[in-house]
Amino acid sequence: MILGIDPGYATVGYGVIEFDKPHLEAKDFGAIITDPKTDFCARLEDIYDSLSQLFLKYKVSAVSIENLYFQNNQKTAIKVSHARGVMILAAAKARVPIFEYTPLQVKTSVTGTAKAPKLQVMQVVKKILNLKFCPDLDDTADALALAICHIYNPKIKFDELFKYS
Amino acid sequence: MILGIDPGYATVGYGVIEFDKPHLEAKDFGAIITDPKTDFCARLEDIYDSLSQLFLKYKVSAVSIENLYFQNNQKTAIKVSHARGVMILAAAKARVPIFEYTPLQVKTSVTGTAKAPKLQVMQVVKKILNLKFCPDLDDTADALALAICHIYNPKIKFDELFKYS
Repeated sequence: MILGIDPGYATVGYGVIEFDKPHLEAKDFGAIITDPKTDFCARLEDIYDSLSQLFLKYKVSAVSIENLYFQNNQKTAIKVSHARGVMILAAAKARVPIFEYTPLQVKTSVTGTAKAPKLQVMQVVKKILNLKFCPDLDDTADALALAICHIYNPKIKFDELFKYS
Repeated sequence: MILGIDPGYATVGYGVIEFDKPHLEAKDFGAIITDPKTDFCARLEDIYDSLSQLFLKYKVSAVSIENLYFQNNQKTAIKVSHARGVMILAAAKARVPIFEYTPLQVKTSVTGTAKAPKLQVMQVVKKILNLKFCPDLDDTADALALAICHIYNPKIKFDELFKYS
């Protein structure tokens, strides 16, 4: 079972996919939405606790998380990085290895083209997982796409920064 | 008792100061040095566990942590932010409020001038705490300075981002 995570501090998309190739089944998906009225520490704790619950509920064998590319908005990048540190810690505490992929790798892996628009990614995810509806949020679709990308990835690449041995 | 933290992912300076104004006493100080041969996840876990141990050992009433200013090296900023997220989580899990200060605020608070060089900060810290020797590492001296800054701070300022209620 693979857990895909689309990192953020306000919204964290997640998707749990069970696979027995070529069959893939979405066991759970959604988003952790942190309360903007609470302070940043409480939001980090919420993210950590919610992910820890997912690790308790499902026998996750790997986490697939989007890597943080360089952004123009450094303030956002810094806040998302704080949250992402907490996500990585949750996986580490659950003794689950973490793999990271760029948005480009995910798009290419799922749709076959790096230029696929968001809607196309969503529709392909829906089709692959045989979902009745598209996920409500981009973040959730992205998280499912991340999990699919990891399952499809023929040669699992450990990133120097984020592998967990 | 105040815990000062100088954030990093390779070296995390810390200093625990007990105070009964005007008397200040350094109860513990040093640095968490993460193993560069282990992967990033293990380093984050090491930081989290080491700080959690400090919270178990001392009755810390507040954490004083350096804020992350914008940096030219965004890659470093992102890695330090991951680690800082984990530090904030450790404080949140210990139910200890967090306060953040800029390097400028710390220098001004401790030495009286924003232009003080590192060595001067170290010597003032040594004098205030009546230490026999200067701390081995800048990171440790900075952590002690952060704790002193918080104790000296007449009007405690909660930062929107990092207060913990």
